[in-house]
Amino acid sequence: MPDDAALIDLLGALAYGELTAFDRLAEDARMAPTLSGRAALAQMAAVEIGHYRLLADRLSSLGAVPEEAMAPFAPALDGFHAMTVPADWLEGLVKAYVGDGLAADFYREIADYVDPATRELIIEVLSDTGSAAFAVREVRAAIEANPAIAGRLALWGRRLVGEAISQTQHVLAERDSLTELLVQGAGDLTGVAALITRITDNHAERMAALGLDG
Amino acid sequence: MPDDAALIDLLGALAYGELTAFDRLAEDARMAPTLSGRAALAQMAAVEIGHYRLLADRLSSLGAVPEEAMAPFAPALDGFHAMTVPADWLEGLVKAYVGDGLAADFYREIADYVDPATRELIIEVLSDTGSAAFAVREVRAAIEANPAIAGRLALWGRRLVGEAISQTQHVLAERDSLTELLVQGAGDLTGVAALITRITDNHAERMAALGLDG
Repeated sequence: MPDDAALIDLLGALAYGELTAFDRLAEDARMAPTLSGRAALAQMAAVEIGHYRLLADRLSSLGAVPEEAMAPFAPALDGFHAMTVPADWLEGLVKAYVGDGLAADFYREIADYVDPATRELIIEVLSDTGSAAFAVREVRAAIEANPAIAGRLALWGRRLVGEAISQTQHVLAERDSLTELLVQGAGDLTGVAALITRITDNHAERMAALGLDG
Repeated sequence: MPDDAALIDLLGALAYGELTAFDRLAEDARMAPTLSGRAALAQMAAVEIGHYRLLADRLSSLGAVPEEAMAPFAPALDGFHAMTVPADWLEGLVKAYVGDGLAADFYREIADYVDPATRELIIEVLSDTGSAAFAVREVRAAIEANPAIAGRLALWGRRLVGEAISQTQHVLAERDSLTELLVQGAGDLTGVAALITRITDNHAERMAALGLDG
């Protein structure tokens, strides 16, 4: 079982992720071509903040200050978002779907290595906010109406996954507790390689669901 | 009793108000000096979207399309926000508190003139999101730490009320159904004058609660 320091790191990273997900969805909502699209994204943002609350409460009950637990992860997550500002509504939707999917896959893998109560909380906060079905529907319809945009969106998806990997490496390089959790949980480096393969396979499936080449 | 057209106008204006309140709180959250302040504002934004959902559902059950019911009120509400972009975190808090207060007072007055089910819904969606106590605490503490900012914030409060009145007049000039609801409800122009006095008295009380001259 990992120690409390690793759990606090894990929950802190997730909590800051939810806060930034809120920001990103709230901002992208403004690019919506319709008021109902805008409301849909705003409601997803609201769900993320509910998840944030659960994580912050758990951190407090572990004796941690949520603000302090989140702080180490702010540079990497802010960096990811700064490097991947969507140029339009469709890029925002692809990012919501592909980015949330990557993050959820990664945290779900780690959740296998922690105590059952923490695992349950992680699975709850990673539950789909409805963005997946919404994004797939909107992006597929847009590509059907104008197939020429598929190439640009496929490139965008590849850029998202590249930035996500790069920022995850930064975090792991700096937070030994998380790296240990990951390597011990996966068993060895072969286990870690298998984990990365599962995550990239899921990513390719999500790109295909959007009608894009991975 | 007002007809359905007036009700749909009223609920449409409120619904668009909640959507823009979400936007504004989400945007102002980014100016928060601390992560906990940012989370607090983001959670208030989430509450507004819950209110939006209730209003949109009611509009649908009245046979209206929420998007169409909201559209007539977008220019005035967008105009209000465009004219009152907070320059910093404190201006954002004053706007959240004073602006929400003005809107809530206005709609609560109108709620007296509609059927009980609609009135109940309006009172529910106008319930304080927690922003009042939070804004009062933060603004008072900031003024205590630096009394020199009180003059600028008092001016800002007056600008907010001026813009709110101006945009309300635009809406009423264009939506006869709402004007009728207001005048018939208040009885006559003396009644309307009394209503305006109640709203401005409440505004002065809110400014005093912040530690500002109204």
